[in-house]
Amino acid sequence: MFLGRIIGTVWSTKKDENLIGAKFLIVRQLDLKLKEKDNFVIAVDSVGAGEGEIVLVATGSSARQTEFTKNKPVDAVIMAIVDKFDVPLKKYLQEQENLT
Amino acid sequence: MFLGRIIGTVWSTKKDENLIGAKFLIVRQLDLKLKEKDNFVIAVDSVGAGEGEIVLVATGSSARQTEFTKNKPVDAVIMAIVDKFDVPLKKYLQEQENLT
Amino acid sequence: MFLGRIIGTVWSTKKDENLIGAKFLIVRQLDLKLKEKDNFVIAVDSVGAGEGEIVLVATGSSARQTEFTKNKPVDAVIMAIVDKFDVPLKKYLQEQENLT
Amino acid sequence: MFLGRIIGTVWSTKKDENLIGAKFLIVRQLDLKLKEKDNFVIAVDSVGAGEGEIVLVATGSSARQTEFTKNKPVDAVIMAIVDKFDVPLKKYLQEQENLT
Amino acid sequence: MFLGRIIGTVWSTKKDENLIGAKFLIVRQLDLKLKEKDNFVIAVDSVGAGEGEIVLVATGSSARQTEFTKNKPVDAVIMAIVDKFDVPLKKYLQEQENLT
Repeated sequence: MFLGRIIGTVWSTKKDENLIGAKFLIVRQLDLKLKEKDNFVIAVDSVGAGEGEIVLVATGSSARQTEFTKNKPVDAVIMAIVDKFDVPLKKYLQEQENLT
Repeated sequence: MFLGRIIGTVWSTKKDENLIGAKFLIVRQLDLKLKEKDNFVIAVDSVGAGEGEIVLVATGSSARQTEFTKNKPVDAVIMAIVDKFDVPLKKYLQEQENLT
Repeated sequence: MFLGRIIGTVWSTKKDENLIGAKFLIVRQLDLKLKEKDNFVIAVDSVGAGEGEIVLVATGSSARQTEFTKNKPVDAVIMAIVDKFDVPLKKYLQEQENLT
Repeated sequence: MFLGRIIGTVWSTKKDENLIGAKFLIVRQLDLKLKEKDNFVIAVDSVGAGEGEIVLVATGSSARQTEFTKNKPVDAVIMAIVDKFDVPLKKYLQEQENLT
Repeated sequence: MFLGRIIGTVWSTKKDENLIGAKFLIVRQLDLKLKEKDNFVIAVDSVGAGEGEIVLVATGSSARQTEFTKNKPVDAVIMAIVDKFDVPLKKYLQEQENLT
């Protein structure tokens, strides 16, 4: 899964009929310091996530393993809202960066 | 899913027999400002999308979850036409960019 | 699917027994101007394509949806030969490029 | 599979109900010299791996082939802890690098 | 599939129980001139390949279509050893490169 922040919504009237009711959210990928990267995906929400929240996104066929997305043309799903992101080795990471 | 704009069409006579009738569209990926990126895919249309329209594309096995693409050698499908693309945090994004 | 040109062949005697008879072609990815990019894949041919031809390649599990590739360890298949590649918005694209 | 080092943990209360009990670990990708790269994924642990350990991560639908992850919205799983990483051609690699 | 050279081995004692007996090989990706690129994957061997050999690697769910890898958490498999790699258009490629 990748780590991302929800930054917006996509609206679509004309879509695959199995996708009626789907909520398409724009999720921007985050790096280890929770800073936004350029990449983003449009993911279907399955956990009631909202704008600004940090979430986990599962992609590919795994995105169809939630109750709502099963057998639907969806390749990215928000399957968890992140409470806490903990990198105890952070100090080590910073040291690494200072070296480069 | 990724966000893209349809910019053209690919014609093929000699193809897998299950793909007779398929409409192959050239979809160029868009960034958060709806500017075209270099990447593009050839996707099968499942929602009656046309040139110039902004769409969502599902890839991988999820591209085979529409009525037309089921069990066909297709790894990218247009499954929604975008009406509105809304990034309320846009102001925040611009600020971020000004910093870099 | 991605757009590519067949530029060569790979021969293998020692391979998975289900792949006996498979034709492994080297397909180099093309950009929107049909210029070759650095990326390439080794794809199994399912439509009788030959060297120099421009083709569509389906990847992942979708590569196993042709009669020959079904249930085989193949993650890229040539499923269409391209007759015509049409980008009516080409003028627009060129303009975009001139700006950058 | 890719090679990675576990550098932290992600906590989530609100998640897909099938993921209750899942342990989400942050795995940073390693290069051939076991130096950390920028890429990372959030992977579910299936072998009792802990922080600091070097592991193998399987992605995509293959991430659902462990007892715990079956039929769950998980696209990355830790399926092995690495004891030894052996590149006998290392000398050759170093030579290559010196040339560039 | 991608083209690679086997450059080493990974040993793991603690792993998914279905992977007992699996041989994890380090495969570095090759470019069209058979020069090694930075990317590498850890792939399971299914054809008796050894260090130094040039091979084809299938990834994703296709990596589970060999007798040994079926239903196992494996996303990369060596499914062919390359005898000959033939690019008749090589001359053309070189010309292209000289232009850039």
